[in-house]
Amino acid sequence: MKQKLDIIKIGGDLLDKPETLLSVLKMFSENKNLKILVHGGGKSATKWSEKLGLKPKLIDGKRITNAENLEIVVMIYAGLINKSVVAQLQSLQCNAVGLSGADLNSIRANKKSNPDIDFGFVGEIESIHISNLNVLLLSNFCPVFSAITHNGKGQLLNTNADSIAAQLSIAFSFTYEVRLLFCFEKSGVLFNSQDENSVIPILQKQNYLALKEQGIIKDGMLPKLENGFLALQNGVREVCIGKPEIINGNTNLFSKLSL
Amino acid sequence: MKQKLDIIKIGGDLLDKPETLLSVLKMFSENKNLKILVHGGGKSATKWSEKLGLKPKLIDGKRITNAENLEIVVMIYAGLINKSVVAQLQSLQCNAVGLSGADLNSIRANKKSNPDIDFGFVGEIESIHISNLNVLLLSNFCPVFSAITHNGKGQLLNTNADSIAAQLSIAFSFTYEVRLLFCFEKSGVLFNSQDENSVIPILQKQNYLALKEQGIIKDGMLPKLENGFLALQNGVREVCIGKPEIINGNTNLFSKLSL
Repeated sequence: MKQKLDIIKIGGDLLDKPETLLSVLKMFSENKNLKILVHGGGKSATKWSEKLGLKPKLIDGKRITNAENLEIVVMIYAGLINKSVVAQLQSLQCNAVGLSGADLNSIRANKKSNPDIDFGFVGEIESIHISNLNVLLLSNFCPVFSAITHNGKGQLLNTNADSIAAQLSIAFSFTYEVRLLFCFEKSGVLFNSQDENSVIPILQKQNYLALKEQGIIKDGMLPKLENGFLALQNGVREVCIGKPEIINGNTNLFSKLSL
Repeated sequence: MKQKLDIIKIGGDLLDKPETLLSVLKMFSENKNLKILVHGGGKSATKWSEKLGLKPKLIDGKRITNAENLEIVVMIYAGLINKSVVAQLQSLQCNAVGLSGADLNSIRANKKSNPDIDFGFVGEIESIHISNLNVLLLSNFCPVFSAITHNGKGQLLNTNADSIAAQLSIAFSFTYEVRLLFCFEKSGVLFNSQDENSVIPILQKQNYLALKEQGIIKDGMLPKLENGFLALQNGVREVCIGKPEIINGNTNLFSKLSL
């Protein structure tokens, strides 16, 4: 039987308030399975960009990462947030090691190609190097990933954290029984975004496609669900979305994906 | 016989120009011993502080690290510089993993205590956790340290990179034959700071103390030499100071410390 591995993505509002983040990291550190944490950036990159007088560059509502934006996200995601999270996990007796995809050549990506828009230094994941990461897991180290990858030629790339979590899950599902958890401030995928009690407990792919078509599921939920279904289709045992209480099974209110 | 381990500190002007840094990293990646890189911050923290409109806080000419300054150095040292160095080393086939002292609880420090000045979030090294780092070395991973440590209670601390290099060297000298190299833009310890040919090839501790007394050796050279002699006194086999060409023995012009 394969050993269990939990890959846990935290994002959204969970990262922006220090006391919320600490409580999430407590829950994470109490989970005794082998585990990997993946964190997004919350609102901090925007906050620091504003401090520096940089305006977000958007084309068709999509964020563009130019050279200056890339420096900011590397500083914030791989530096400030990642190392703060690691220091806090260490204080909670979790032997964390903060990584970007460049570290140990763990996640290689290519610049996202799109015929219409040049997104700049945004990476689409090409490959995951499992063997180096497995050395860490087998030593009971806990990898903590920021959403930065590299192209193998010295270039760092800004990469979607949900994709990193899903691709890590898929890559590890050959050797582990992987559970992928997307944690954020809501209780799951909601029928009505204003009603926390409207959680869809089991979301089947065909229902997801219909709800997306109707515009009921939208925005930031789409990359989580696209990545979540991709993971399920590629060997990941279980994919759940909800509040961080799902990490240790301390809530019945969450959404579980189903094919 | 103990296996060889090179601990190489790079700092000063080597970090500020991308083409210089790349050439240094090429030399580093061509060194085939087990190795650890420790990097300072160069002028980048000052540059980014200015962009943010922050003025460096000095008391008696000594830099103070307040909460805002700490965020900047964590962002720049552990984020931007560390991950850029790692991505470039990976492109040179060196399997680098970027670390702060919080990662794997590798370097613990306490807030520097001084009866007269509160230096703020500045760390004095208390202990090095060798066993976790040894897992990395034995897997042929190459640790790359930024000059950030932690106190084990969730607090990151700004820490002198020369001290990190020396304390790592001392800690590893129980299991490895350690060579500690301080690389910067000059050819070594100079009798005359204006004359690159005035390198002191072998600097004995008693000569160092006399030259320091006379004000011939001063400023940024002092922490390197204090740390260098400390390392020699505590089991480190060899301590040299000079241009990065010393990494692979491609120059005869450098200073070697002697007790």
